[in-house]
Amino acid sequence: MSLQAPSRPDLRQEVHDAARRARIASRALALLPTVAKDQALKSAADSIVANTEQILAANAEDLKAARAVGTADAMLDRLALNATRVEGIAAGLRQVAGLPDPVGEVLRGYSLPNGLQLRQQRVPLGVIGMIYEGRPNVTVDAFGLALKSGNAVLLRGSSSAWHSNQALVEVLRSALRAEDLPVDAVQLISADDRSTVTHLIQARGLVDVAIPRGGASLIDAVVRDAQVPTIETGVGNCHVYVHEGADLDVAERIVLNSKTRRPSVCNAAETLLVDAAIAGEALPRLVAALQDSGVTVHLDANEDHLRREYLAMEIAVAVVDGVDAAIAHVNEYGTGHTEAIVTNNVAAAQRFTDGVDAAAVMVNASTSFTDGEQFGFGAEIGISTQKLHARGPMGLPELTSTKWIAWGDGHIRPT
Amino acid sequence: MSLQAPSRPDLRQEVHDAARRARIASRALALLPTVAKDQALKSAADSIVANTEQILAANAEDLKAARAVGTADAMLDRLALNATRVEGIAAGLRQVAGLPDPVGEVLRGYSLPNGLQLRQQRVPLGVIGMIYEGRPNVTVDAFGLALKSGNAVLLRGSSSAWHSNQALVEVLRSALRAEDLPVDAVQLISADDRSTVTHLIQARGLVDVAIPRGGASLIDAVVRDAQVPTIETGVGNCHVYVHEGADLDVAERIVLNSKTRRPSVCNAAETLLVDAAIAGEALPRLVAALQDSGVTVHLDANEDHLRREYLAMEIAVAVVDGVDAAIAHVNEYGTGHTEAIVTNNVAAAQRFTDGVDAAAVMVNASTSFTDGEQFGFGAEIGISTQKLHARGPMGLPELTSTKWIAWGDGHIRPT
Repeated sequence: MSLQAPSRPDLRQEVHDAARRARIASRALALLPTVAKDQALKSAADSIVANTEQILAANAEDLKAARAVGTADAMLDRLALNATRVEGIAAGLRQVAGLPDPVGEVLRGYSLPNGLQLRQQRVPLGVIGMIYEGRPNVTVDAFGLALKSGNAVLLRGSSSAWHSNQALVEVLRSALRAEDLPVDAVQLISADDRSTVTHLIQARGLVDVAIPRGGASLIDAVVRDAQVPTIETGVGNCHVYVHEGADLDVAERIVLNSKTRRPSVCNAAETLLVDAAIAGEALPRLVAALQDSGVTVHLDANEDHLRREYLAMEIAVAVVDGVDAAIAHVNEYGTGHTEAIVTNNVAAAQRFTDGVDAAAVMVNASTSFTDGEQFGFGAEIGISTQKLHARGPMGLPELTSTKWIAWGDGHIRPT
Repeated sequence: MSLQAPSRPDLRQEVHDAARRARIASRALALLPTVAKDQALKSAADSIVANTEQILAANAEDLKAARAVGTADAMLDRLALNATRVEGIAAGLRQVAGLPDPVGEVLRGYSLPNGLQLRQQRVPLGVIGMIYEGRPNVTVDAFGLALKSGNAVLLRGSSSAWHSNQALVEVLRSALRAEDLPVDAVQLISADDRSTVTHLIQARGLVDVAIPRGGASLIDAVVRDAQVPTIETGVGNCHVYVHEGADLDVAERIVLNSKTRRPSVCNAAETLLVDAAIAGEALPRLVAALQDSGVTVHLDANEDHLRREYLAMEIAVAVVDGVDAAIAHVNEYGTGHTEAIVTNNVAAAQRFTDGVDAAAVMVNASTSFTDGEQFGFGAEIGISTQKLHARGPMGLPELTSTKWIAWGDGHIRPT
């Protein structure tokens, strides 16, 4: 995928103008008390439910266009809304209203030897650019998390969801207007040209962070071309390593859950690593269990199999010789998302958790626990697989920066 | 400044090979106990002092070459080493050895309702790429901070300091070898071609973070062309705003200290904002005080003056009408480094600290306090002016990422 499509200068202007409006809105959002933000979130939730009909009509347009170009059923399902799904989207906003406000939290604070009083506190990032595919619910989720954390958000969704996104954003902006909050807290960026992604991720000084959510090629293109800071999310080539010290009942349960619970999400396992020491017994049993569950098992996995994020009922299998070989394999082929070991051996578990370079490492637990809700965040904007700023599920605190504030009474620094 | 010089493929290979060696070293460094790292730091400090003669000889070569091309005295001073400065560099390593090790610190930890035990702990970033100018002490400082935080570092210093850097890195690597630690924890990247900067900052998957330290044009070029995450540092167009509620004695002291203490550093004030309400009295007094201290004052400051980071005994002056105008000015012209207000009015101070978008905001204190040492970090690798990951002075914790570790006993996630 390339984002280097010839750019239309009017679109660049359009994106930059939106970003400038977002910046202005963000200054006001940063100062809002929690109650005002929560009230707006609840009011937006009510408006979404009240406008269900209009939202579904817009969604029907998108679905019609998608069907006309022969979109696959799985994609149509991701795009489709109905009254229950709309209720669910509104419920998400109410849930965010109930979460603690990260803004203003003091992370560190102390008096310096000279009496200067110093504290580091959380402040909003400012303007967030979201680039995403498919699901219209991301539009509302991103708005809710951004607003609660005091940020303005620029949404560059998929063109396939344009009408749905437009209807949703219109409802959100009306709700903001009714609450006397800046409507430019949320703006939808034109999706009819790929160049708007480029303009958004190159708007230095106007956009504080770009968060791509989608397939590996989208994320790769965004990270490569971005000139604003980005957070890589969600590509998960996750492994389950069954160590020789594993209880095979536990191993079977964890392998099956990691692979089959929801094969299309990023925390699903894509490769099973079996230790050579127990391969004779474990391998046939685990492979049979996977196949019985309908999983296609790539037993003689080649390089391509091992690098693949299937996101489907498929899994690669490799035999590794000991925990160090497992760690080396994971660090070579993994995407730094979630890695699991099944073992009753403390030393092996410790070595694996220490040596594996990933956002999350599970000992005797399914890879599917890597998820903001599961981790107790209430909601997440994505799962970061990079090491800067945030790693793993990102909730509200991950959408903030910090500011140092010092109070003195005429303090100067000696030369 | 452009980094798009025609690239030599052999140099790309060279940089990538170094990064791969650094990655391997980083795996070992991440697992080192604190005592081993501290011992290596002390041993490296001893080696530096023991090799003073050799280091000064190399430095003399750099100085000779710099003089031959007519380098300015200020630049020569930044480049020059002597026995005292070498002692100071070694002392820096000993100081880092005495700081707490950030690796392994548990930031959050709890048991989920299902009994899964979850904790988030600090881990090294991995491989850090430093791109910097001038001073050879940065070479050793960066090594010390990287090693203590369990990271490998790739150093791309200035070609003008090549011999000095080479001598220093050789000493550091010998010290690592003597302590049985991986020598590739520190590597010097070829500086005879600008393309090595590009190769370093585009080595996705090989370099975890690039940190540019230097002038605005270097930082700008790195951030624009980087494909690995970067941390912007150090450009400081800092303001002191003298509010109508200011004590003018305090104001004069703070303005003078902020401007003249060390005009060449990033936390020095570059613009004085005086409130219109007190301009009649305050302006002549502050301007006279600045001029008496040898500062050139740009009274009718134009757009160019207001955007300039002088890093010299020069300051721009502007009159603003009230605290909101001051905030708007700062947010328009500032670089998000440090902003100060002088006032005895609580509401104004609060409004300024809330409204100003910067890494640090000072109330009745000099801008020169924004510094890792002053903030109690013991040492700093730079001052971040971006909002992601770290903002303000960056010490050891800012050179780490985190990892979630979950311990279960066969936990699977319900569908």
